[in-house]
Amino acid sequence: MQTFALLGAGFIGRVHAENLAAQPNVDFARVFDVDASRAAEIADRYDAAATDDVDAVFTDPAIDAVLIASSTNTHADLLKRAAAAGKAVFCEKPIDLSLEVARDAAAAARAAGIPVMMDFNRRYDAAYAAVHDAVQSGEVGQVELVSMTTRGPSLPPIAYLEVSGGQMRDQTVHFFDLLRWITGLEPVEVYVAGAALADPAVAEVGDVDTSVAVLRLVNGALVQIDSQRRIGYGYDERIEVNGSVRMVEAARHRTGFVNHYGPGELRTNGLDAGWFERIRGTYRKSLDAFVDALERSAPMPAPLDDGLRAQVIAEAATQSLRTHQPVAIPEGL
Amino acid sequence: MQTFALLGAGFIGRVHAENLAAQPNVDFARVFDVDASRAAEIADRYDAAATDDVDAVFTDPAIDAVLIASSTNTHADLLKRAAAAGKAVFCEKPIDLSLEVARDAAAAARAAGIPVMMDFNRRYDAAYAAVHDAVQSGEVGQVELVSMTTRGPSLPPIAYLEVSGGQMRDQTVHFFDLLRWITGLEPVEVYVAGAALADPAVAEVGDVDTSVAVLRLVNGALVQIDSQRRIGYGYDERIEVNGSVRMVEAARHRTGFVNHYGPGELRTNGLDAGWFERIRGTYRKSLDAFVDALERSAPMPAPLDDGLRAQVIAEAATQSLRTHQPVAIPEGL
Amino acid sequence: MQTFALLGAGFIGRVHAENLAAQPNVDFARVFDVDASRAAEIADRYDAAATDDVDAVFTDPAIDAVLIASSTNTHADLLKRAAAAGKAVFCEKPIDLSLEVARDAAAAARAAGIPVMMDFNRRYDAAYAAVHDAVQSGEVGQVELVSMTTRGPSLPPIAYLEVSGGQMRDQTVHFFDLLRWITGLEPVEVYVAGAALADPAVAEVGDVDTSVAVLRLVNGALVQIDSQRRIGYGYDERIEVNGSVRMVEAARHRTGFVNHYGPGELRTNGLDAGWFERIRGTYRKSLDAFVDALERSAPMPAPLDDGLRAQVIAEAATQSLRTHQPVAIPEGL
Amino acid sequence: MQTFALLGAGFIGRVHAENLAAQPNVDFARVFDVDASRAAEIADRYDAAATDDVDAVFTDPAIDAVLIASSTNTHADLLKRAAAAGKAVFCEKPIDLSLEVARDAAAAARAAGIPVMMDFNRRYDAAYAAVHDAVQSGEVGQVELVSMTTRGPSLPPIAYLEVSGGQMRDQTVHFFDLLRWITGLEPVEVYVAGAALADPAVAEVGDVDTSVAVLRLVNGALVQIDSQRRIGYGYDERIEVNGSVRMVEAARHRTGFVNHYGPGELRTNGLDAGWFERIRGTYRKSLDAFVDALERSAPMPAPLDDGLRAQVIAEAATQSLRTHQPVAIPEGL
Repeated sequence: MQTFALLGAGFIGRVHAENLAAQPNVDFARVFDVDASRAAEIADRYDAAATDDVDAVFTDPAIDAVLIASSTNTHADLLKRAAAAGKAVFCEKPIDLSLEVARDAAAAARAAGIPVMMDFNRRYDAAYAAVHDAVQSGEVGQVELVSMTTRGPSLPPIAYLEVSGGQMRDQTVHFFDLLRWITGLEPVEVYVAGAALADPAVAEVGDVDTSVAVLRLVNGALVQIDSQRRIGYGYDERIEVNGSVRMVEAARHRTGFVNHYGPGELRTNGLDAGWFERIRGTYRKSLDAFVDALERSAPMPAPLDDGLRAQVIAEAATQSLRTHQPVAIPEGL
Repeated sequence: MQTFALLGAGFIGRVHAENLAAQPNVDFARVFDVDASRAAEIADRYDAAATDDVDAVFTDPAIDAVLIASSTNTHADLLKRAAAAGKAVFCEKPIDLSLEVARDAAAAARAAGIPVMMDFNRRYDAAYAAVHDAVQSGEVGQVELVSMTTRGPSLPPIAYLEVSGGQMRDQTVHFFDLLRWITGLEPVEVYVAGAALADPAVAEVGDVDTSVAVLRLVNGALVQIDSQRRIGYGYDERIEVNGSVRMVEAARHRTGFVNHYGPGELRTNGLDAGWFERIRGTYRKSLDAFVDALERSAPMPAPLDDGLRAQVIAEAATQSLRTHQPVAIPEGL
Repeated sequence: MQTFALLGAGFIGRVHAENLAAQPNVDFARVFDVDASRAAEIADRYDAAATDDVDAVFTDPAIDAVLIASSTNTHADLLKRAAAAGKAVFCEKPIDLSLEVARDAAAAARAAGIPVMMDFNRRYDAAYAAVHDAVQSGEVGQVELVSMTTRGPSLPPIAYLEVSGGQMRDQTVHFFDLLRWITGLEPVEVYVAGAALADPAVAEVGDVDTSVAVLRLVNGALVQIDSQRRIGYGYDERIEVNGSVRMVEAARHRTGFVNHYGPGELRTNGLDAGWFERIRGTYRKSLDAFVDALERSAPMPAPLDDGLRAQVIAEAATQSLRTHQPVAIPEGL
Repeated sequence: MQTFALLGAGFIGRVHAENLAAQPNVDFARVFDVDASRAAEIADRYDAAATDDVDAVFTDPAIDAVLIASSTNTHADLLKRAAAAGKAVFCEKPIDLSLEVARDAAAAARAAGIPVMMDFNRRYDAAYAAVHDAVQSGEVGQVELVSMTTRGPSLPPIAYLEVSGGQMRDQTVHFFDLLRWITGLEPVEVYVAGAALADPAVAEVGDVDTSVAVLRLVNGALVQIDSQRRIGYGYDERIEVNGSVRMVEAARHRTGFVNHYGPGELRTNGLDAGWFERIRGTYRKSLDAFVDALERSAPMPAPLDDGLRAQVIAEAATQSLRTHQPVAIPEGL
């Protein structure tokens, strides 16, 4: 049994709270939020103790693990505190928008030897896991071309985009991680073309809402990732891995199987409305994997360094977007 | 807020218990089972009180509603007790395998004026609801041909079949209800051909495991329902309604969207493993509809008489199976 | 090389003419039609000789084979003339609407020992052939339930229905043949429910436009065949064979792969407009099989007796429709 | 009626010959090939006159139009001869591998005022035409992201690759044309990453077999085109156009609708075996459009300048592949 504190009681914090409460090997003991009333609301619901004093969490010897679900700019600091306090960490992405700050926090965690897992929950999507397994089993042969799509239904608020770090660091980064995980291959170069098509305000804050990234993997294979912030037909993400002998794909996720037939036409279910509908089931599975690894003192399934590595790639991609040139991705962290 | 007692703590009772505990307008107060330890297990989990004395439930003035999820042969008796005690009832199918006994219990409930809803949960399946809505909206025009399929992955134990009432009363009956609900039309005649193909023991207990039922609706339309107990490719149920101008279908429910491409071949996800995987989500929605109707003192969405009517059709179907002749379905209850 | 005469220059005759002209092992020499101008039109196009005198065809020693594509009521007579003249025959269905007349003509052909192939061209549809092969290979295990659908886009003229022999003999009969061919099993009993829903005039000429046939095969398996003359969503035919271990189907045939995605909705290609679009490719393959068998002096792929047997089943189905009772299908021809 | 000479009697010449013979408004009079026996074989089959002297074609006043289907390095010369002789031209792609030579021949044709149509036959694929129509109708809104895939089943002979001009000029060029035609927008910049993964010999002749091209259109939209010479799962080409309000796609073209269901798995038809199976139907439609335009003295549907423009883009793409830099695409021809 692992005793948990949840750090952050916003939207994604509530998702994690429900999962912590239902996880059989978790004692969901504490909830922290800078907004005391938000913390209290969750704590009441799940019989946990609320606090707006994060020190109370880290000094509590009963706490085994913290789940960092607070705003992005607090992740690195909380990670360092957890390192100092010797608590295990389940951490929402990213570690920090600044690669330097992220590296510094990661070094602290590494030095302290605490178990840290990044919540790369898409790895727990049944379809992506099936693609991973097929590629790793050798079913497709040598990987030659990977195609990834990530498209959301609406532009986030411009105020959010301004502090998001840009499309590569905020949206495409999830697929940089999936790419490494599925293929087991490191990307060595990236070129990104981007455009602000949904709203001129996106360009004014120095970002893009539509982009195509082309990467080259260490084995010579090519990768294309298209990212869009606002599309008109729902939420669309998919992955296709074509190898030297076969191809496997996690195709678009339709919401049902109701078919309306008319003259010359079939009308059927479209896609999920948004990212949460598409991947909500993965949060619980990701948490389960963390708890299971803690219980078995096993290596972390999505270790902190994977989070750092995805950020290194996003950094090079952002540079390509700015310089309009292909950029070599440095090795290591 | 409605205070509930759960009657029956077996497999389906546990499903209902989880839903009762999570329903915001339900106070889940009591659990009854003839096996005290089974009752206690659920009660402990959800902070309810356990009992193996059903009178304790019916004499408790705090209880507003009972959820009958005990073994089939106890439904009618519990329904009559609820009528006598003035409790609302959410009742698993069927009322009783004997149409006479079912009619008697229904009469008592009717006389007492208690709200009773049959748990015809498939009506709350998103796909079937979409077919219902399309047909009721007039999208398909006049209904002309309805095709229904219900196929399970494995033969139930022969001991179960022996007391099940036979395939029409036990399996096909759900689709007799869906047929009436989706089309809003009464069937007037039925012919059933059946066979015991999966195991000779099925025939020995006087039952069939494979059947095709043909019904004629009051407007002249035709219906075909195929029912199989044991198929080799998972769990398959679907409904197709073809009208004078268009067609709508709830197609097979595949479990995912992972595609493996090889030379001349695409391999992809198959069907659900069993009925529970296919319709588990509908139990909660069905319960929600009951609670909502209670809260609003509104008419019951799937009233007791619909349960009785489905049994009347199943009775005629069983007779056709035995006599090898088309059988007229009597009007009314 | 086989020298052919085409008998009948109507719509289906023109289809056969194009195939005869393109078949490398056929010398397309003569065209007969009672309407000399229709015969001449085809003859001119393909450098054949036209005639409205059928004797000129049968007395021509150069003719090896005749293709009977004239109106149904002439088939039996032409077949007998071919038997007398010793010509091979490729014969459109049916032999005759009267089973007695058909038997008589078949007896003559049999006595003369001429090669006769029925144009059961659906056997040459790639999808149905794949289902046949899967079933015959044992892939599905023992056949347990066969589902067939045959639905056309519009009601034929009432004048045609009046002389068509009724829906069983005219439409469903093709699937009686496919059923025997795919499963290799004889049906032993049939029950048919029918209705005239598209037009009251259908009932006035003693026919139905919508029907469900239930058959029992000699191994105990069940079969359901739904037939509709007029549906609103194009042309729909499909076959599904469920066995003791797996299932195989020839699903609906959509016309393309263009997808239009909008909010919550996918709009895509519907079905073929009519039967000709669906199966046009099969006529040539059927002819090829006949020519190939002639060239190799091999047994006929779809022998005359298969035509007779399908009619025997259609006869019993028609009787069931009239008597409203299940009817035993006699063995043999 | 247009009198045609076919120039070139190889594989694609035979395809054109069959279509010329079947086209009702074409008199298929002459066949030229440097190999007299190849010309004679086609001429015999379709009652045309064979020659290995191309002057005999151009000096024949009866010839209205020539169909250039000879080897690529002869196209430009034949086009100039046709210009000099005043014959209409239906021309296989490309005009010439050298953009300079192509420009020169195009100038001659332009000066002579002869009607010239490039055989951009993919424009006549029903799926691509539907995508074109949807985009041009405004259905998708403003074009924002176009995704195109072109993947063949096997590496062409290295000897062919050596003279092919490289993957951009030989394979991807068809999609440069489709891109312009479907969107009605000019590309202004291109970046291409390529790799030789199928065979090291591809790199030795200075070519790639796998590539991703990223283009920017004049309205700011982005385009990704992946091209592969050798994949393991058949022939795969598709196009997707995502606009500001909806998305439309010509999806993978599967070869049938036969489904095999087993436990947890559905096995179904894969893709076409090769490019010819996928687009064979388009050659006739493309020819029909040319003949129709000639008959009506209407503008050419795919004029010579479109062929030149696709080559201009391929030239820039080839330069990007070599320089490893994004390259601006010059305006005009």
